[in-house]
Order: sequence, then C-alpha cells, then structure tokens
Amino acid sequence: MVSTIESIDGGVATPRGFRAAGVAAGIKANGALDLALIVSDRPATVSAVFTLNRAQAAPVLVSKRHLERSGGVARAVIVNSGCANACTGDEGLHAASAMAAETARLAGCAVEQVLVASTGVIGVALPIEKIRAGLPAAFAALGATHGPAAARAIMTTDPFPKEAAATVDVGGRTVTIGGMAKGSGMIEPMLATMLGFVTTDAQVPRALLDRALREAVEDTFNAITVDGECSTNDCVMLLANGASGAAVDEASYDRFVHALKTVCLALALGIVRGGEGATKVITVTVTGAASEAEARRAAKAIANSPLVKTAVHGGDPNWGRLIAVAGRAGVEFELSRAVVTIGSTVLFREGRPHDEAAPQAAKYLKGREISVGVDLGAGRESSTVWTCDLSAEYVRINADYRT
Amino acid sequence: MVSTIESIDGGVATPRGFRAAGVAAGIKANGALDLALIVSDRPATVSAVFTLNRAQAAPVLVSKRHLERSGGVARAVIVNSGCANACTGDEGLHAASAMAAETARLAGCAVEQVLVASTGVIGVALPIEKIRAGLPAAFAALGATHGPAAARAIMTTDPFPKEAAATVDVGGRTVTIGGMAKGSGMIEPMLATMLGFVTTDAQVPRALLDRALREAVEDTFNAITVDGECSTNDCVMLLANGASGAAVDEASYDRFVHALKTVCLALALGIVRGGEGATKVITVTVTGAASEAEARRAAKAIANSPLVKTAVHGGDPNWGRLIAVAGRAGVEFELSRAVVTIGSTVLFREGRPHDEAAPQAAKYLKGREISVGVDLGAGRESSTVWTCDLSAEYVRINADYRT
Repeated sequence: MVSTIESIDGGVATPRGFRAAGVAAGIKANGALDLALIVSDRPATVSAVFTLNRAQAAPVLVSKRHLERSGGVARAVIVNSGCANACTGDEGLHAASAMAAETARLAGCAVEQVLVASTGVIGVALPIEKIRAGLPAAFAALGATHGPAAARAIMTTDPFPKEAAATVDVGGRTVTIGGMAKGSGMIEPMLATMLGFVTTDAQVPRALLDRALREAVEDTFNAITVDGECSTNDCVMLLANGASGAAVDEASYDRFVHALKTVCLALALGIVRGGEGATKVITVTVTGAASEAEARRAAKAIANSPLVKTAVHGGDPNWGRLIAVAGRAGVEFELSRAVVTIGSTVLFREGRPHDEAAPQAAKYLKGREISVGVDLGAGRESSTVWTCDLSAEYVRINADYRT
Repeated sequence: MVSTIESIDGGVATPRGFRAAGVAAGIKANGALDLALIVSDRPATVSAVFTLNRAQAAPVLVSKRHLERSGGVARAVIVNSGCANACTGDEGLHAASAMAAETARLAGCAVEQVLVASTGVIGVALPIEKIRAGLPAAFAALGATHGPAAARAIMTTDPFPKEAAATVDVGGRTVTIGGMAKGSGMIEPMLATMLGFVTTDAQVPRALLDRALREAVEDTFNAITVDGECSTNDCVMLLANGASGAAVDEASYDRFVHALKTVCLALALGIVRGGEGATKVITVTVTGAASEAEARRAAKAIANSPLVKTAVHGGDPNWGRLIAVAGRAGVEFELSRAVVTIGSTVLFREGRPHDEAAPQAAKYLKGREISVGVDLGAGRESSTVWTCDLSAEYVRINADYRT
C-alpha cells in the first residue's frame, strides 16, 4: 500500500488543537522575537530526545524531570532564545523551573506538563523576570496561524526560520504533523544549539510515539552535521494531542513514521542549509559497508572532514580526500573494490583514478546541492548523511571576539 | 638519577655512522629538492610505525614487507616528495619496489634492507625513471652534514624544514639521536602526509627499539593534530646502528626513551607550527580524567574542535566551547567539579563562570604559544596534545582548485 504523504506549508500550530506564539520579551538586546510558546488545547502525549553532552543545560535537566513526573504528558512548551541557561549552576535550574511554573500557571496545568528549552549564550544567567513579564503577551498572542512567529522567536543567528508540515491518512482520517527547528548559527560565539519541536494531531500511545521519534530522528536530525559539535542544549520534542480523532497503531505506524521523517528531514535540511558560512548542502552516501553502523560512521567521518568540506567549497573533485577519509574512518574498507562518485561521475573505481572525468565533476560542483558517494567495497549496507561546506566565512564567524 | 639529555642542532645524519643527502630528481616540476636518502654505514636495527588508514599507499606496503623479511634490519631509507604513490594499484607497488631495488643496488645491500616512503599527490603514477636517474646523484651527495638537504627534500608544502637532535649518556658513552619530519601542508590539495625519520648511533635490541618507538610516538607524533585527518602515507621510522659503541638495555631504557621523546616532540611541534594556515600553537592539557585513555580522548576532541580552534584564532577566551566539547567527548565529566583555564587564568570553576578574568585571558591569547586546560572533575589521569588554530587561510589553502 502506497502511503499518501503530502508535504504542506505549515509549522507547529498547523496540526489541530495546537496554537503557538512568538513575542519579544527583551532577552535579545535588539528587540527581536525571543520567546516562543506552543500550547495544546488538550493534554498531549510527548516524547523527546536530548543532547548526549555531559554538560547538560538547566532547561534540559528540568524538561527531563518533568517528562518523568508527568509520565509523558504535556500541555505547553516554552522556549527562549538569547540565553542558553547552560553552565549556570543551581541558579539556572531555579530559573528554568520558574519559567515552567509561570507558564503552567497561565496555561492552567500542572507544572510537570510544561517543557522548557533555551538557546543562546552559555554561562549567562537567564533573565527570568523578563520572561515572566513577557509570558502574558505570549499567551495573548496564541493562535493557530502564529507558527511562523514562534519559529522566528527560537532563532539565534539562523539566517532564516525553519518550518515544515505534512499530512498523512490514518484510518481514513487526515493526520497533520508540523514542526519548527533552529540550527547552530554561532556568529555570536557560544551559541550552538539545535532545537526541534514537532506537533501532531494524531493520537499515539507513548511507547509508539517514543519509537517513532527515535526512528525519525536517527535518519534526520542525527544524520546531519555542520561542524561535528554537539551542544549543551540540543533537543527534539514531539507532541501528539489526538485532536484529529485518528489513532496511530502498529498497522498505521510505518506510514506515520514516514510522514514524521518527511517533516523532520525538511527541518534538518534547513539547519544544514543555514549552517554557519554554508554555501552548499552536501549529501554524503556511503554504500558497500559491512554494517549499517559502519556505513553511518564512514558517512559522518566524510561529512565532518575539513578537507572534504573545503574541497567541495572550492569546487575541487578531490576523490583522494574521500578515499583517505573512508580509509581512516575505522570501518572495513577494500581499496581495490572502492568506488568514489561525485554527482553521477565515477572518479575512482577498481583501484584506479578516472581523472579524465574530473572536469565534468568540477562543473557539477559549481551547483549548490552536491551529492558525493563512496562505496567501501566491504558489504551491502548503506547510510546517508547531510552536511554543508566549510568556508572562510565559517572561520570569520567563529573567530570574532564575543564583545 | 637525573638524565643528562641535551638538545643539540642536528638531524638524521648527526648520529655517528649515518649519512644523508637531498637532491632534485625532477619529480617536483619547480626543480626543488625532492629525493632524500639516509644510509647507515652498517646494518641498523629498525622499528617503524605506519598509518592506520585502510587505504595504505604502495611505499607503506613495501616498507612493511621489507621490515618483515629483513627481521628489522635496514641499511638505507629512500624518500621522495612530489608524489605519494597512493591509490596507484599494482603499478604503484612495482614502482615502490623498483625504487627500493635500485637503492639497494647502489648501497650494496639486500633489497629488504631498504625502506621507502613517498609524499605528495595521491593517485598519480610515481615517475620511477626520474627516481632511478636521480639516485646516483643522491649517493654521490651523501654526507654527515647533509641532513638539512634531506630535510628539505621531503617537504611538500611545509613552510619550513623540521630537524631535531639530542644526546644522552648511556653507560658512560654519548648516544646521539637525530631526526627529520614533514607535516601536512596541503596548499596543493591531495597532499597530506606526516613522515618522520629518526636515527641513533646507540645499539638497541629490536624488541626494545620497538617499545621505545611506540612509547615515544604515543606522546609526540600521535599527540598532535592539525585537522584530525590521517593520511595514506604516514610513517615514522627509527634506525639504530650502534656506531656509538653504547648499548641500550633495560637499565638505560628510560633515559634513552626520554631523549627519543625530546627529538620526536621537537619534530612533532614543528609539524604543528607549520600546520596549514596556522598562526598559533595550542597546548591542550586535560586533567582530572577517569583514565589516561579518556584524558587523551577529551584532549583530542578539544584539539580537533573547529569551534575551539577558531576561538583561539580570534583571541576569544571562550570557556563555554571548551566545556561543551569536553561534555560531548564521550568521557566521564562532572560539570560541577570541572575547571577551565586559559594560560594561568581560571575562567570556570565549581559550576560558575569567572568572566571577570576574561580580559586577562584575552590578552594572553594574543600570543603565539597558547595553553588551554580542562579538568574533567572525574578522576586523576591526564594527557597533553598539541594543535594549531584554524584560520580562514586554512580554508583558502584547501579550497583552491588543484589546477
């Protein structure tokens, strides 16, 4: 059976029963939107994945605690930009809790049904009074058409907001999935957070929702890399409120996950496209691997290689760097059976270069959407990851002194 | 007992019984020195470590085979720059073997007593006729004062040659250790090789020599990183010919290794100092680790972090990036006990920033030799690694189209 998944314009407030808002609470000195609110009109089942960084920010710790206490039920998500509330000690934990408590009071729900997230400068105290003062305006602004404002309010130095939505039939009813995300722009150094928020009006049992989120994240948010860094605040949250009347079960699970991946991938690719100093999106596909884990490992090594990223930036069909990185990735690799392709051009096969094809590949590399492929010659598994090129602009952005 | 190790001016031909030469064989189009020869006047015990890259270049495969067949005895090492002889298939293996065979013929030794190394462009056939034609001139030029020419002949895009030497007393006799190395300059893309050649006039049993080389390399060549890449041709070779009449045994082993590390570290730091686009050398020391392996892992993660390297480049005392990288390094890490220092300035301790000290750290970062320290707060082990900063020049160098 063919899934009828349709990508549509929309974001976190597009699924039924969700409203969103983005307001300026004065956390950002320039007066830009900096406080985003998502509210579900009924309790939503929630699943979330958090950064594996051992230096977890206060909002990450508070959201994890709330998820545990609520048994995976949420009514609201409150997010601020302009301050990461990371490396802020006990004071930071109090501030994150206070941010949740005030949101719960205004939403009329238990505090553990509020999740919090922050992004911005590390090591600076959260201006909790500004957030308290801004929350009533955020609640007043809540609306089903205000997803775009929320998507703007979570931006730090992202060059553009990232929203995506899709619909899918579940048991004869249309389920909508919507999301927003922000990437790791670090023009103001010490900003480095990937946040993703996805909503759906499907009803999904918590265990199935957890499984769906993990599966979708693995092939989307976890398959992108800008610079190999992982922040103290990264998180992806998925809320399912059942407002569509459609219930996802084992029979419809695959189709739901497929639609969820569509939304997550669109958001994840937006992060790559808006990567610091990025001028090109690079799709890295590794085939011929001994295992899926090795395929992913080799693909990530290639995607994080400064030599590969600079070669693509410079339009250089440098197959030697792809071979060298695959060779050092710590995976099974057979040079005599390896194949390197750039676009559809084979540049290395059967142990021999095909440099006669280099001009064709160089022409292809002038584009902005680049695919590179390496077959490891060691098996049948594959993996795809996405990254951006490495430009001198990346260095300029990150070398700028904070002040 | 205090070891009396003295660093001296010198290189691979400084230890007694070794001669070296560097000549221009026409492999480099610009006529620069491109063929280096080291000859011992008697059979030398040899130990070597090679790249772990699965795409090993032909000279690596040939040298490994010769080491096996000779039982670890060598009379000569022949090295060319300008061509890596990597990804060149059977033809490349024949060329590397021919290069060794012609050297053996002129040296009057068995072919397996000759080691070969190459560095330069990947995927281009080795111009073996040029090497054959150049070898007689190299033999004619052999001399104990020609180490500097050999060090120049192995350069690709290194900004300067790297030589080092030291002396140490062994059983009342002076043992000399000398070496040369080249780094991974990649102004001409697809060049990416670290080569090191170290000689000593001590007599060292092979098992002890192997142990000494591995121990020294671990704390020197393996403790540096320019961009986290590992080439198809990397190798470090150590030849001990016994010409000093001093024999290293278990009693004098520690002192010998200490002297060997002195030479290897000087060469390794030369590679970092000459890293692509480098303007600063960064010493990264991780303390408070649960194990030495975790200390090294965290130190390498910090040293390879583009965010840390750009922050140092920009003179930004960005302790948050050091915390974030330590947190994601996959090692035990306790934020509340972690300490971050830049130079001698503490910027984070007991879960709190000390940004009042940032101006002092910023002033320190204007220097060219930078130390950063992270205490993981998780144990008592430590590790030090060295890297360079990441500049826009690095990107320009590596993004340039090869032609």
